[in-house]
Amino acid sequence: MTPAQTLRHIFEQALQVVRPEPMLTSCLTLKKDVLIVGEQSLKFDLSRFKRVVVLGAGKASSEMARVLERILGPWISAGLVVTKYGHGVSCKKVKTLEAGHPVPDQNSLRAGIEFKNLITSYQDKDTLFIFLLSGGASSLLVLPEQGLSLDDKMALNKLLLSCGANIYEINALRKHVSQIKGGKLSKMAYPSSLLTLIISDVIGDPLDVIGSGPTVPDSSSWAECKAILDKYELWDQLTPSLRTYFEQGVKGKLADTPKSGDKFFSHVKNLIVGNNFTLLTKAAQIATDLGYNTLILSSELQGEAKEAGKFLASIAKTAVKHGCPCALPCCIVSGGETTVRLGQNPGLGGRNQELALSFALDVEGLDNVFLLSAGSDGTDGPTDAAGAIVDGRTIKQARSKGLNGQNFLTRHDSYSFLQAIDALLFTGPTYTNVMDIQIILGEK
Amino acid sequence: MTPAQTLRHIFEQALQVVRPEPMLTSCLTLKKDVLIVGEQSLKFDLSRFKRVVVLGAGKASSEMARVLERILGPWISAGLVVTKYGHGVSCKKVKTLEAGHPVPDQNSLRAGIEFKNLITSYQDKDTLFIFLLSGGASSLLVLPEQGLSLDDKMALNKLLLSCGANIYEINALRKHVSQIKGGKLSKMAYPSSLLTLIISDVIGDPLDVIGSGPTVPDSSSWAECKAILDKYELWDQLTPSLRTYFEQGVKGKLADTPKSGDKFFSHVKNLIVGNNFTLLTKAAQIATDLGYNTLILSSELQGEAKEAGKFLASIAKTAVKHGCPCALPCCIVSGGETTVRLGQNPGLGGRNQELALSFALDVEGLDNVFLLSAGSDGTDGPTDAAGAIVDGRTIKQARSKGLNGQNFLTRHDSYSFLQAIDALLFTGPTYTNVMDIQIILGEK
Repeated sequence: MTPAQTLRHIFEQALQVVRPEPMLTSCLTLKKDVLIVGEQSLKFDLSRFKRVVVLGAGKASSEMARVLERILGPWISAGLVVTKYGHGVSCKKVKTLEAGHPVPDQNSLRAGIEFKNLITSYQDKDTLFIFLLSGGASSLLVLPEQGLSLDDKMALNKLLLSCGANIYEINALRKHVSQIKGGKLSKMAYPSSLLTLIISDVIGDPLDVIGSGPTVPDSSSWAECKAILDKYELWDQLTPSLRTYFEQGVKGKLADTPKSGDKFFSHVKNLIVGNNFTLLTKAAQIATDLGYNTLILSSELQGEAKEAGKFLASIAKTAVKHGCPCALPCCIVSGGETTVRLGQNPGLGGRNQELALSFALDVEGLDNVFLLSAGSDGTDGPTDAAGAIVDGRTIKQARSKGLNGQNFLTRHDSYSFLQAIDALLFTGPTYTNVMDIQIILGEK
Repeated sequence: MTPAQTLRHIFEQALQVVRPEPMLTSCLTLKKDVLIVGEQSLKFDLSRFKRVVVLGAGKASSEMARVLERILGPWISAGLVVTKYGHGVSCKKVKTLEAGHPVPDQNSLRAGIEFKNLITSYQDKDTLFIFLLSGGASSLLVLPEQGLSLDDKMALNKLLLSCGANIYEINALRKHVSQIKGGKLSKMAYPSSLLTLIISDVIGDPLDVIGSGPTVPDSSSWAECKAILDKYELWDQLTPSLRTYFEQGVKGKLADTPKSGDKFFSHVKNLIVGNNFTLLTKAAQIATDLGYNTLILSSELQGEAKEAGKFLASIAKTAVKHGCPCALPCCIVSGGETTVRLGQNPGLGGRNQELALSFALDVEGLDNVFLLSAGSDGTDGPTDAAGAIVDGRTIKQARSKGLNGQNFLTRHDSYSFLQAIDALLFTGPTYTNVMDIQIILGEK
């Protein structure tokens, strides 16, 4: 295999382990009537329940439901999942809806309404709900509080994104206007038992952030909502319904989001079944088996994509020069989710492509350094590529075709650059999402 | 020791190894009449020479000369070094000048003239010149080509920095207007023997960049100078003397910079005696001796300081959560030189302080993560601090005093923030410069 082929091999093989099938089968075991969950040896005696009802929201959730049907078979009575358009697979008992992502649409609202109908119809102690949560749920599953419409919710979102509020502040308000987010799905399902199985697409796996935390306690309050609306002077910009709603909430006339210790969480268990670190661990193991000295750098990489490319290049350069942090031949893997701050009239690209181009610029001339950077969901930005594979000869190759890498990076046009030199990586949909991975090879 | 004390201990002890004394004594051995240099077993039979003359330019060069006098004693006939104001130490035979840095001044020019006088007076096969080069030399030692003045040189510099030329283009023109840079010191000293001992303050140790490469071949040409002046349309903005000078050069009426293979380099040896990796290696060794699992991440860290802080934080977080890339207790060291792009009305700070503040923001809440980031020369930006020590409690501590870390970072006012919570690190001048170091501790 060439190093580029090796990179692709490691990526594709490692991806297999974060697909719903291996993740769920490795954490769920059915022994007679007992469902054993994870390493914590959490147990559910299914014979104690009258029914098991499957719920799900997220890009991987339809596939997760299919796998769960295979594991639990006849134990499942009914189910409903919502996933992104094109991501639905056929299940036997679980109904699949498709809706909008990253912007919610009428089908997201329809999903919310059907969710509530299903949950309330089975809402008793004899029901075990298994909720399959993955990235994208916030947009795919929407149900505004009584008196609010989807338009109100969208208007609030727009206001929050433009006023300069930070992500904590945005989430506090979002959770307060939803019947699902911020622990309210747990409240809706009470007193049923509820097991949430989560594929994490958020750095650090914060349970209250993934899918806006529908089954975990919320730490924000009406008082904070007031402070945020005051701070950014948003009261006058709210729609009339939102304004009335928040005024009533702030006055204490509406219930707050469920808090830690509330009875609504007494029968709720949340479990991360897979995350970015799962992917990195598998990639490192494959590389080790291929004879590489291997290092997992971080599963929490964030910040500007092109700066991340520089940092990874600085590590690769030291590796091939000094054998640090890893002796050659080495494979250094990292993951997380970087960002791209676009300027005026940007070109086409994605964070992985931009990271790869920046890396290539900084390792130019080294003939033993190679990098793959890609999204585990098979997409990178608004492009049809998952990412790219570059090396120390990439920039020179492009120059021979009259392409200046730095210029393409400056105008955020990494896709056009990488496409012209055949360095893009395509995978199609992978039916999972644990953020991005970078794999560096340093050959002898 | 507290972790903060441990960080300071590792930093200060590691710094000792990159001071001129240990660096020169470890690479120079005098056995009877023979000077043995470095691991390459380069040898100079001093009895073959009529004289050894010491030259030097850079922030560490006066101290280097003092150490060299101690090693070679009576073998030294004469010498001249130029260093930054306040960095001169007293030597026996070597004269020390002080001049301007980072902007050259009349004393830089005076140093250039005295250099040329000294070199030409001893310029024969019976002389061994030992040239002590360290960071800052480009500004401290200046001698424009015949017909050009210091003002011409300064005007060209200003023009180049504002026209958008890249560092390679800037260096090409700078070298062509100097009698010292771009290998011309070797030409000046020919046919004497010349040994250049270098403390590197440039990422990757490129010999043609450190101090503008006075004793290494230059790869740029008059033709390139023309192309650059054309590209940025600089001809009409040149001073009359510069314009005449470049016109003559481009027409082939002036000699080009010395090239690889030229006779001027036949008796020249260049040796890096210390660099950032030397510092990191020592820091890692000290940490290992203290019982830490240790990793050298990179000696070539560059890019935006606040992004570097994020990047190191992402690694620290994964370390304390998963024991990757290093099992706890761990010490992860990196080095290089980051940059800060200042906006309007910036506050006070330096790249290490900005990196540390950004790191602190991203590890907030972790009680077992600690970072030191500092300049090895004891200064960080236009401040009196060398850098800072922060940890996962820094941001909370500051908040209790009413200080918002993110706001201070946004307006590049890291010094004020770190000063208020007593997190600055002070060392005074260290008489060396191998760029910056970051030391992360992850405690159990």
